[in-house]
Formats: sequence, C-alpha cells, structure tokens
Amino acid sequence: MHRMRLLIPWYPRVPLRTESLYFARWSSTGPPEQRGLMRFSTAEAAAKTGPPGRLREKTLTMATLNPQVKAVEYAVRGPIVIKAGDIERGLQQGVKQPFTEVIKANIGDSHAMGQQPITFVRQVVALCCFPELMDSPAFPEDAKQRARRILQDCGGQSLGAYSASQGVDCVRQDIAEYITQRDRGVPSDWNDVYLTTGASDGIMSILKLLVSGEGRSRTGVMIPIPQYPLYSAAISELEAVHINYYLDEANCWALDIEELHRAYLTAKQHCKPRVLCIINPGNPTGQVQSKKCIEDVLHFAYEENLFVMADEVYQDNVYSSDFQFHSFKKVLYEMGPKYFNNVELASFHSTSKGYTGECGFRGGYMEVLNMDPQVKAQLIKLLSVRLCPPVSGQAAMDVIVNPPKEHEPSYAQFTKEKSSILDALAHKARLTEQILNSVPGIKCNPVQGAMYAFPQIFIPPQAIQEAQALSLAPDMLYCLKLLEETGICVVPGSGFGQKEGTYHFRMTILPTPEKLKVLLQKLKEFHLRFLEKYSQQEAQMTSSSQQMSKQPD
Amino acid sequence: MHRMRLLIPWYPRVPLRTESLYFARWSSTGPPEQRGLMRFSTAEAAAKTGPPGRLREKTLTMATLNPQVKAVEYAVRGPIVIKAGDIERGLQQGVKQPFTEVIKANIGDSHAMGQQPITFVRQVVALCCFPELMDSPAFPEDAKQRARRILQDCGGQSLGAYSASQGVDCVRQDIAEYITQRDRGVPSDWNDVYLTTGASDGIMSILKLLVSGEGRSRTGVMIPIPQYPLYSAAISELEAVHINYYLDEANCWALDIEELHRAYLTAKQHCKPRVLCIINPGNPTGQVQSKKCIEDVLHFAYEENLFVMADEVYQDNVYSSDFQFHSFKKVLYEMGPKYFNNVELASFHSTSKGYTGECGFRGGYMEVLNMDPQVKAQLIKLLSVRLCPPVSGQAAMDVIVNPPKEHEPSYAQFTKEKSSILDALAHKARLTEQILNSVPGIKCNPVQGAMYAFPQIFIPPQAIQEAQALSLAPDMLYCLKLLEETGICVVPGSGFGQKEGTYHFRMTILPTPEKLKVLLQKLKEFHLRFLEKYSQQEAQMTSSSQQMSKQPD
Repeated sequence: MHRMRLLIPWYPRVPLRTESLYFARWSSTGPPEQRGLMRFSTAEAAAKTGPPGRLREKTLTMATLNPQVKAVEYAVRGPIVIKAGDIERGLQQGVKQPFTEVIKANIGDSHAMGQQPITFVRQVVALCCFPELMDSPAFPEDAKQRARRILQDCGGQSLGAYSASQGVDCVRQDIAEYITQRDRGVPSDWNDVYLTTGASDGIMSILKLLVSGEGRSRTGVMIPIPQYPLYSAAISELEAVHINYYLDEANCWALDIEELHRAYLTAKQHCKPRVLCIINPGNPTGQVQSKKCIEDVLHFAYEENLFVMADEVYQDNVYSSDFQFHSFKKVLYEMGPKYFNNVELASFHSTSKGYTGECGFRGGYMEVLNMDPQVKAQLIKLLSVRLCPPVSGQAAMDVIVNPPKEHEPSYAQFTKEKSSILDALAHKARLTEQILNSVPGIKCNPVQGAMYAFPQIFIPPQAIQEAQALSLAPDMLYCLKLLEETGICVVPGSGFGQKEGTYHFRMTILPTPEKLKVLLQKLKEFHLRFLEKYSQQEAQMTSSSQQMSKQPD
Repeated sequence: MHRMRLLIPWYPRVPLRTESLYFARWSSTGPPEQRGLMRFSTAEAAAKTGPPGRLREKTLTMATLNPQVKAVEYAVRGPIVIKAGDIERGLQQGVKQPFTEVIKANIGDSHAMGQQPITFVRQVVALCCFPELMDSPAFPEDAKQRARRILQDCGGQSLGAYSASQGVDCVRQDIAEYITQRDRGVPSDWNDVYLTTGASDGIMSILKLLVSGEGRSRTGVMIPIPQYPLYSAAISELEAVHINYYLDEANCWALDIEELHRAYLTAKQHCKPRVLCIINPGNPTGQVQSKKCIEDVLHFAYEENLFVMADEVYQDNVYSSDFQFHSFKKVLYEMGPKYFNNVELASFHSTSKGYTGECGFRGGYMEVLNMDPQVKAQLIKLLSVRLCPPVSGQAAMDVIVNPPKEHEPSYAQFTKEKSSILDALAHKARLTEQILNSVPGIKCNPVQGAMYAFPQIFIPPQAIQEAQALSLAPDMLYCLKLLEETGICVVPGSGFGQKEGTYHFRMTILPTPEKLKVLLQKLKEFHLRFLEKYSQQEAQMTSSSQQMSKQPD
C-alpha cells in the first residue's frame, strides 16, 4: 500500500575525503609555521610529523551523538553532491573523466547555474552596504530612495546594527503591502510579518513551537510525499511524528483530499496530528494547486483544527497561463470569516527563488495569522535568542516586495530582466518535460511551476537487486552511475519520498538552455545504456538463476 | 550557598502592545483595500468591522506550546527592552517623559550606538554585492582584489549563490591563516573551520550535537555564572542540564578552578557533564583570563573528558596592556601533544564584536579540533539542512581575518579607523568603571575586555520586598525604575545569573563618550534617589512593622 521509502542511510560510515584525525607538526620551539603548514592535508601533516600523543576515546562519538541529529537526513546536499564535488576537484586537477564538467542540477541555486542577479536588487543592497555610493551618479534615484528608506529604519542607520528580531519595521510594512496587493486587497498587518534567515529558518521556528506531547499525544506533522527534505529533517530533529500524505502522480501530482483524510485517520491512532504542511507550487513535484484544492485543504484543516504551514516560496514561478498561483491566505479570506478568523496559518516566502534567486543572502519572511497572542510573544522570544535575520537579506527581501514602479527610472530595466528570467524558466520547464518524455522508461509530469522536474524512471529488476546488494536505494544507484558516467548531478527520489516500488529523481531546470539540452541528451543516452545493460544482465541471469539465489543480499 | 537566580519569569502573561486578535474588514465584493487597511492596528480594524466569525480554541496555545520553547529565557531582549521600545515610540509621538531620549545600553550593538563601519569592510562587501563597481576608480585596488578573490570561490561568481554548508573555501582558508598568525604559528587546518550565522548559530550547532542521554546520563553543560544568556536559552531548548560554575567577583570575575571541580562533582550525581563553556573575554563580566587559568581549565577538561566550547568573540576587545588575549587553542598547543591531540575544542568568533561591530551581517566562524570524523560528517549534514550562512556575512568575516597589509593602499585608513575605535572603547571602559565606583552602593570590577560593565548594586531590603510583592527580581525592579525615570536601558543581573542575594546590571560601554558621561551621571543620581527613597521607606516601615507583616507576598 502506501508504505514509504523516504529515508536512505546516506552518510558514509567511512570518513569523508577531507576527514582524518588532526596531526600537528609538533614544535614548540622552532620558527612559526604559517601558510605552508596550513595547506597540508591532515594526512600529509601526519606523514611529516612524529606520532601524536596517545589518542583516547572522545567525548563526542557516534555513540554519544544526539540521536535526533543522527536521525536527520537531507538528500539535496547528500552523498551524491559530495561525490560531485570530489569529481569536480579531480577534473580541475587533471583527473580524466568521460566528461569535461560536472553539471549540478541537484539544487535550486540559480546564480550558481549562471543566472545574473537583478540589477536593482544589487544596487539597493550595495547602497545600503556602502552609503557613500548615495553620491554616485551611477546609481538611479529610485534605488537610492529605497536604500535611504531601509537605512532610516536601521539602528544607527547602518546595515551593521542588529534589527529587531521580527525584522526592520519598514521592510515588514512593505511586505504587508505586497501581500495585500498580491491578494487583491485582502488586508495584511505588518505585526503578523516576520523576517527570516531564508524560508527554512521560518519553517523550523514555527515547527519548533508546535511540537509537544509524548507517545500517542506527540505532535504529528502532515507532509506531502514527495516532499522537500527540510520537512523530514526538521521533524526528525524535533522528534515529531511525520504523517505522509501522497500526492497523486497520475494526476499531475495533485493533492487528493481523500488521501489527506486517509493519512490523518491512520495517524490519529498513534499520534496527535496538529500540523499540515503544503508546498505550492510543489517541490520537488512542480504542480500548481487549484483554488478548489486549496479550499478543500483549508476546510479540512478547519475541521480537524490543524495549524497550516504553506510553503509558498515558488509563488512567482508559475510557467503556464493555464495555472495561477493562489495564496492560501487569499483563499482562506474568500471562504469567509468563520475560516479567516480561525485557521492558524503561516505562509513562507524567500529571496532565494522566484526570478531573483538570491540564495546567498538568506532572506525570507513569514506571515502568521490567527496565532494566539501569548504564543506570539513566545515566538518573538525564541527569535530574539538568535538576535535577528541578516539585515542585507532583509534589504534584498524589501526590494523583491517593493520593486520599481512604472514611473520610476529603474522600471524598464527591472521589468526586462525579470521577464527574461521567467520566460527562460518557462521555456526550460517545457523543454525538460518534452525531452524527458521522449525517453523510453522515463515519464515526467508537466513542470507547472517551481524549478524542478521529478520524473519517474523505470529501473530494471536486476539493477534493483544490485542496489540492494550494495545497501543503496535503487534510484541512488541510478543517480550515482549517472554522475560517474556523465558528470550530471541529480538527487534520487528516495531523498524526497515516493510510493514503494516507484523510482524518481529530482533535477532542476536551471542550467542555461544550451547546457540543459546537452544535459537532457546525455541523460537520455545514459538511461538507454542503463536499461540495455541491466536487461542484458537479466537475460544472462535467467540462464544462471541458480547462482543468483546464492548471492548475498 | 551557591544557589542561583538565573531565570526570571519575564514574558508577560498579558498580550504585548502589538498583540490582539486579527479582525479583518470583511468584504468579498467591495473594492480592494490596500495601504489604508494595512496601517490599521488590529484593534482599530476590529472597531471598524462587524463581529468576527465564532472564535474557537486554537491548535497552538500556551497549553500545547513546545515546553522546551516555554522554558527558554533571553534577558538581553527581554521585557525591559520591549518597554524601552514602547517608551521610545511614545517619545516620537510626543508623549512627555522626564527625559528626551532612550539610551539603549542593553545590547552589544556598536553601530546602533553610533559607531561607524570600517570603510574597508564595507567596500569589499559592496564590491562583492555589485561587481559593476570593480570599474569604479573610487574603490581601492586592495578592496577589489579581496572582492575578486571571494567571488571567484562563489557559485557563478555571485554572492547570491548558496555557498558550501561549511562556507566559501577561500574564506575558510583565510580564517585558518588568521588563526595561525594570531596563535604565532600554531597550525590551523581550514577543514576544521566552519562559517556560521553569527557566533550564536555555531554555539547552538555544537551544543545540539552534544546533547543525549536520559535521566542521570543526560548531558550536563557547564556554564559560567554570570553567563551570556544564549547558553541557558540553548540548554533549555535542547533539554540539557545546566551546571553553573560561579566566577569569582571578589577576584575580578576570575575563573576559579576549585569552583569548577565543585560544580562538576555536584552535577555528576544527577547528570553526565560532557561540555564546558567558557567566555573569554567575559560576557557580561569583562574579565580577560590569564594563560595559567586557561591551562588549568584545559587540564581539567582533559582529565574529565569534557568537550570545550571557547566563546572568544571578544578576542580583539582587550583594553589594558596588563592583559593579553590567549586563545584556548594556542594554550592547548603549548601544553603538548597529549592535550593538543585529544581535547575536543570548538572556538567561536564573530563579525559582530571586535572593532567592526558588524552585527547585522550575521557573520561568524568556528574552528573545531579533534572532532571524531564520523561526527564531523554528521555536523556537516546538520549544517547542510540550513544550506549555508549568509554569504555577505562570510565576505565581512573574510575582511576581518584578512585586513589590508602594510604595503596596501587601504592600510593607513584601516589602521586609523581600527585604533580609533579600540582606543575609544578602552577609554570608555575606564570611564565607566571609575564613575560607577564613585557611587555609594555600586561596585564595579575593572572592564578588562569585551563591551560591558557588570557592577554589583546594593538594593535596600525595602526595595527587595517591593519587588517580591510584584513578582519581580529586585534588580529587574531597579532596572525598570531606571528606565522609567531616566530613559536608560540596561539589563538586570538576574538575566545572566548571579550569586543568591547579590544584584547587578549589565550595561554596554558603547555610547559615545559624551553620551556615556551623561548616562553615568544620570545613573548616579538615580541610584542615590533610589537608595534614599527606600531607606526613608524603611525608616517609616520600622515604625509600622505590624502592618508590614500582614502584607501579602
């Protein structure tokens, strides 16, 4: 049935490449060793120095490590990506490979894939950072005006002061206004808005509040499968109970309300479901939810008294005129006051996605509705321990919610840059779907939004058997071989969760169109080779099935 | 004896000023309401709209809130600071007060108190942020060279790409080189260096690894009292056991090794002490530890197999030539390989303190020695879930560890700015100590380092009684009255921990010298009034002691 294969043991039991015990050149009298010594790999250092002092058992070992940390899994930066990094460094050092570059399609990191920053965003942040530039004629007046406004609300008018823990006042006000406009007049109160260190930080903070109880009253968190693995990681870290509801692959990864009910009722027997997480547009699945579906979900959340966490970081990434982004908040408002004044809802946004792709700034916000006022005070207290989100990220967020207006000098360039990025993404979304679906044994739903394709792949039984013998998920074996043979780095579906017996991978649509075409062509060739190889083996195996049964598993 | 008064119930049971339930103007047909509606306070909105839908019990209430979150306390941004903000906004709106401005001496936030950024830091970050500036003759070549080097190691040569979870390679290399130079040749391996989102984030990550076990084998964490409340907050959040060792106020807040032993032995009966936290230079206490003391501490940590967390964020803030900063790592190295190859040590640094005071960038790093390689892989996995620290903060950190060299164009200005800030801090440290010690009933140890004075204050018994009647810590009452009467915002000692029956406050030495003098003069006058008032009351009370005994407590 709906058993899931969400987590795979992916951190190597053997030390990573860069890991080895630290051996220092021991000299308390000789001249200081500086740059040279630092460059030693620790293994080299060990070779050059005498034996270390007696090593004894450490305080912090795998046996004493926090078990909640051990339980965390995060495939987007997992072993495939570590291996890709190793191969890349090897290539730089002249190691021969059947390819000349590693293409990292594992993570939604637009700039790393060559996307250029939006000029206006960078102008405003640079002005905030170095206000002497206010005198430079090279910067347009609207950028200066934005920067002045942000700095006015910063302590000492400096990006270097801590902001309030909820964020800079005017940035929160601009966000509230953005939400109001986005949702066609649904009011937003800036007291409900919190700046965050990327969306992940906000999601973690809200989940942290919600986890309580023991045994059968332990908080259960409903997450879509496939999911973005931040959710499962956070749930592990907080020792909550994950409740998986499966998206309907046959129906373009739609959220099926019956499936929500099923998951809820099953889970109720062993935990207290209190949170419902939704990702719209979907990650890794790329679907855009219909208004009707969102209504159903909110109705369900109301009936079962669930706290709704709406991950809406891809709200600007919708690629077809057939679909439209509907915010959970707007739909809730339109359902009437019974819902709007009751359902507890947190919505998350980020500087990292959309058309800006400013991941490195770690900017984001959340709007939290209907939170109990005393709990809100507790949330602010919790946020205050970490002092504040990065203020440069807050400035970047401000520009995204308050871009140049039609009469302003930067409007034309901004609009051009924005459409060019979004048009390219829409083109690449279609291209990816089309080419993937041209490959026998690969089936890909339309990429309606977000930045990813999540195709289903057929893996021959013999390859599955080989993977099992290696204690690998079959799609992990597939992705490892893809990386080794082609230099293409994608993430196995098992890192996101998938129905038992199905296999997928997630790839981003972010490479440039030229590179994306090469990638898809190479992928196609690899897949055909893979099918051929394991089908041949299978044929051979059939004639030697007796040996097979003796093989260890 | 050594019972402590660390935590006070400080979050108000009544909603904060900005808290009230959200009532929306309900109109699904009328014209969109935008800016106007957003500006409503929620109370105003409620007044203008009809009755809300039936309100029902929420999912997330104080009863269902994560109890670990409830247990967290963080005084540096506590009720005093919230009240200070309210008063400040009142002043802006014309509310009359016996003072014209609020002086926030509660938090080590240099820029908010008027300190100017170091030009070179901001030039490099601005160049990284907006590389078009590379062509500008207004930027010096050494700043451009630093920026080019950082960008070269960023994905897509953009500050907007995620970095590796441990941080940008060249920044980690520069940090390792800085450490090597700082410690006069003690080698540093950049594989042991991790960029963080401020020091708090690093401290939290390491503590998270270390917490395990149940009951008597639950991890105990030794913290100094007084401490910086991040530690107690993190320990509460992680449900570890805090073990308090008291710094010796009579001996300039020195760390007494006998006291460490006492605390350890006492704690061993009910938990498993596994971590020893040290803050050097001290926060809130300002002492600089001697090399001998650090040796003793490391010897103790070795013998008892404790993981050492050395909070060294004030390493550049030492104000007297009688004292010198010794890093725990250097001392460990000089103790010989038996110690250097065994003691597990994490040291933390930050962009927020020192002479740069760049708090808003949320930059920092940690160097972790002798960590078990498998545990290290787990740490990297944990960090990867949050993707990466803000890259602009990493760039700021890079400048701090790799400032202009003597032959470079920015050297003169950089050196001038740096000394000017550190000289001013040294001056203000002496000034603060001198004036505080001139007040009867206030006793202040020398401010050897960091950014704070932590004077002991005499509170008359009658004031203590009044505080108890209000369920306030006596020094909280003192600080509240100080704020109300003078506009000066400092943090009560009870937020940091202090010996039972002693009272303190923490104030920063960050205001400009002129403002600091005014602050100290006002404080002096307030303190004398406070003493006088409560001594008078006491005289009156003596003649009416019978009524007193009937008073509720």
